Amino acid sequence: MELKEQIHVWMKKNEGELFRMLQSMVREPSIQANEAGIQLLTKGWLEEVGFEVDMWEPGGELFIHEAFLSARDSFAGSPNVVGVKKGNGFGRSLVLNGHVDVVREGDSDDWHTDPFSGEIKDGKLYGRGATDMKGGNAAMLFALQALHDLNIVCEGDIIFHSVIEEESGGAGTLAAILRGYAGDAALIPEPTQMKIFPKQQGSLWFRLHIKGASAHGGTPYRGVNAIEKAMAVFLSLKELEKIRNDRVSDPLYEEVPIPLPINVGVVEGGDWPSSVPDLVKLEGRYGVGPDETVEAAQAEFEAWIAGLGKKDNWFAAHPVKLEWFGARWLPGAIDTDHPLMNILTKNYEKVMGEIPAVEASPWGTDGGLLTAVGNTPTIVFGPGITSLAHFANEYVELDKVRSCAEIIAYTILEWCSGINKEAEE
Amino acid sequence: MELKEQIHVWMKKNEGELFRMLQSMVREPSIQANEAGIQLLTKGWLEEVGFEVDMWEPGGELFIHEAFLSARDSFAGSPNVVGVKKGNGFGRSLVLNGHVDVVREGDSDDWHTDPFSGEIKDGKLYGRGATDMKGGNAAMLFALQALHDLNIVCEGDIIFHSVIEEESGGAGTLAAILRGYAGDAALIPEPTQMKIFPKQQGSLWFRLHIKGASAHGGTPYRGVNAIEKAMAVFLSLKELEKIRNDRVSDPLYEEVPIPLPINVGVVEGGDWPSSVPDLVKLEGRYGVGPDETVEAAQAEFEAWIAGLGKKDNWFAAHPVKLEWFGARWLPGAIDTDHPLMNILTKNYEKVMGEIPAVEASPWGTDGGLLTAVGNTPTIVFGPGITSLAHFANEYVELDKVRSCAEIIAYTILEWCSGINKEAEE
Repeated sequence: MELKEQIHVWMKKNEGELFRMLQSMVREPSIQANEAGIQLLTKGWLEEVGFEVDMWEPGGELFIHEAFLSARDSFAGSPNVVGVKKGNGFGRSLVLNGHVDVVREGDSDDWHTDPFSGEIKDGKLYGRGATDMKGGNAAMLFALQALHDLNIVCEGDIIFHSVIEEESGGAGTLAAILRGYAGDAALIPEPTQMKIFPKQQGSLWFRLHIKGASAHGGTPYRGVNAIEKAMAVFLSLKELEKIRNDRVSDPLYEEVPIPLPINVGVVEGGDWPSSVPDLVKLEGRYGVGPDETVEAAQAEFEAWIAGLGKKDNWFAAHPVKLEWFGARWLPGAIDTDHPLMNILTKNYEKVMGEIPAVEASPWGTDGGLLTAVGNTPTIVFGPGITSLAHFANEYVELDKVRSCAEIIAYTILEWCSGINKEAEE
Repeated sequence: MELKEQIHVWMKKNEGELFRMLQSMVREPSIQANEAGIQLLTKGWLEEVGFEVDMWEPGGELFIHEAFLSARDSFAGSPNVVGVKKGNGFGRSLVLNGHVDVVREGDSDDWHTDPFSGEIKDGKLYGRGATDMKGGNAAMLFALQALHDLNIVCEGDIIFHSVIEEESGGAGTLAAILRGYAGDAALIPEPTQMKIFPKQQGSLWFRLHIKGASAHGGTPYRGVNAIEKAMAVFLSLKELEKIRNDRVSDPLYEEVPIPLPINVGVVEGGDWPSSVPDLVKLEGRYGVGPDETVEAAQAEFEAWIAGLGKKDNWFAAHPVKLEWFGARWLPGAIDTDHPLMNILTKNYEKVMGEIPAVEASPWGTDGGLLTAVGNTPTIVFGPGITSLAHFANEYVELDKVRSCAEIIAYTILEWCSGINKEAEE
């Protein structure tokens, strides 16, 4: 029996294992600072399939790296896990990267089950993190189990990143890269809904402080309402968004209405209904294209904000203050004709019986760090449902997780094999 | 010597007493729930000038009255003080109303002295409450001292309200009214900068909940940004403001750009820069005219908000939710040809040597409660500087306080005298 066929049969037979593994992942409420439980489980799974495991609490040089961004000043109790299965050095190495941290479950009244139940119903497994991205992690581990059980030895190294902090700036992946765990290419099964994303939008968070002039609410004409001024800034950001998106010509973005959005996500201003507010804060997310540098994108935004004074004297006298803060996701990319793209695409066709959707993702992943800092071109491709990430009643479709595991197993097989390496290079 | 001349001479001679009294008032940090100290002082002053004093902690029926509005469920430790000096029943009664509560001092770094210093410099007395409205209270008490010292007996009752809670909904004045302390007319020396306000704008606080639809900030076009929808509501409130103000024809409002403003004072929405916010809250102050009822003004606002759906289908499907909350000041009024207006105006001219500015005030006072609940027509006239109320480095000009005291003393003399009552009626 051909190797892929063996894998297919093995997976079909053992799919219950996959679902149970995913269930135990979801039952670990691995929100920020609570990742130790799932990391210990992952360490165990990796060791069972013959990986050498490195588990450590990130620190040291991480904190002073220019790409480091986190509100935390210690990762004590939040270990990273990296497992390595060395090849014979003749194959290409592959990084399989998945984050174990999940965003908070929110109001549990919005969930129809316990948010960490892992309940399976109608082929769907429910729970916080099921889609983002424990379904993807389980698919990768299941692929490794299949290869291990079938005694398939790869020539290239397989480096499994089980990282913390993806939801808050990527410190876990950065720590793994800085510890030397990069590779020839990487795969991250974030929830793409089985689309293949060779490019990922990066993003930066901005905060704008917009001034007004206070007055009593009975005589508002004596003041300047900062909310009104914030509205002008909001509309001006829409203009900048249009200018930036009019420049995008990459065919990968053909179907995307706004490839590089500027989203204002938070507004806050004033503290008394009877006063004219003198300060409004806007916070948002600034999309950065895979074909621009973060620095150039920042400079364009900064110049735009500084230019507000030319359109409105108020802003000349009271400049809007800009801060870059909090999270930053670097844009990520791999060439669309990169060999890993070809391998993944063909294996997708083999398993799914159709041509995959290949798009640029509208959000960043740790693939940006792997690309920019780790010099590891990255594809994002996973079974989760994009629109369910971060929402109540998040679930993942189990048949997609299985299919994804199969595609990943085939892809490891070909990418890491010396034969294919020679054949393609 | 004519009585007014005697008062004038007495006040000139004793003005040091006035300033010391005001100083000791300001040195009492009578913020909400800390009014007992100043009330005990006031009780003492009233007793010294022959008033019968009633001091009590408001409660009971107050809490179930329809005009009651307060975040507090007890006024323990926050007594009201009312002093009464009965006349012989042949004169008209006068309520002199002043609140002792002051708003918080804010950041003390913004003050050039201690916020409760009562420091006197260049004819100004500094401190929280100096303008709003302890300067006015001191002027009233000084007027009573003059009448007492000069053995001037009035025929009408004088009812002195020293109330709590004006800054937070007027529970103190309401309690005084409900305890039976109303009168034929009232004077409130709130900081009008020596202008005479026969009408006072009332106000209500509103809160609007504006819905959007959440989405990831990388694909904002899949959601509806509640900030954008809140902007539409904000602009719509401007339209309503215009419609309401176009109707105002009272000559008292001739000089006021927007007699009945709608002020949006607080905005808050979203909780994550990378998400499209699905809810924005706006809070504001809705000006109510002296010539409309609160009920009619509310109904107009409610209909306007309900009508948003006709202009934008989004609001038809996702109606903006309106709450009336927190503070409410009823509009107050007295006829501009009311005898007390004539008396006060003439005495102003006598003391100040000029014609007073007579305007409608852009903010409410406890005069609304006196008018609507106590059936006591009210004039607002006081020495404080309107624009300094609630700000750092608040002060009051001592010569204005003295002049105001003199005007009030003359006015009491004429209004409460039986002779004048006969002469004018």
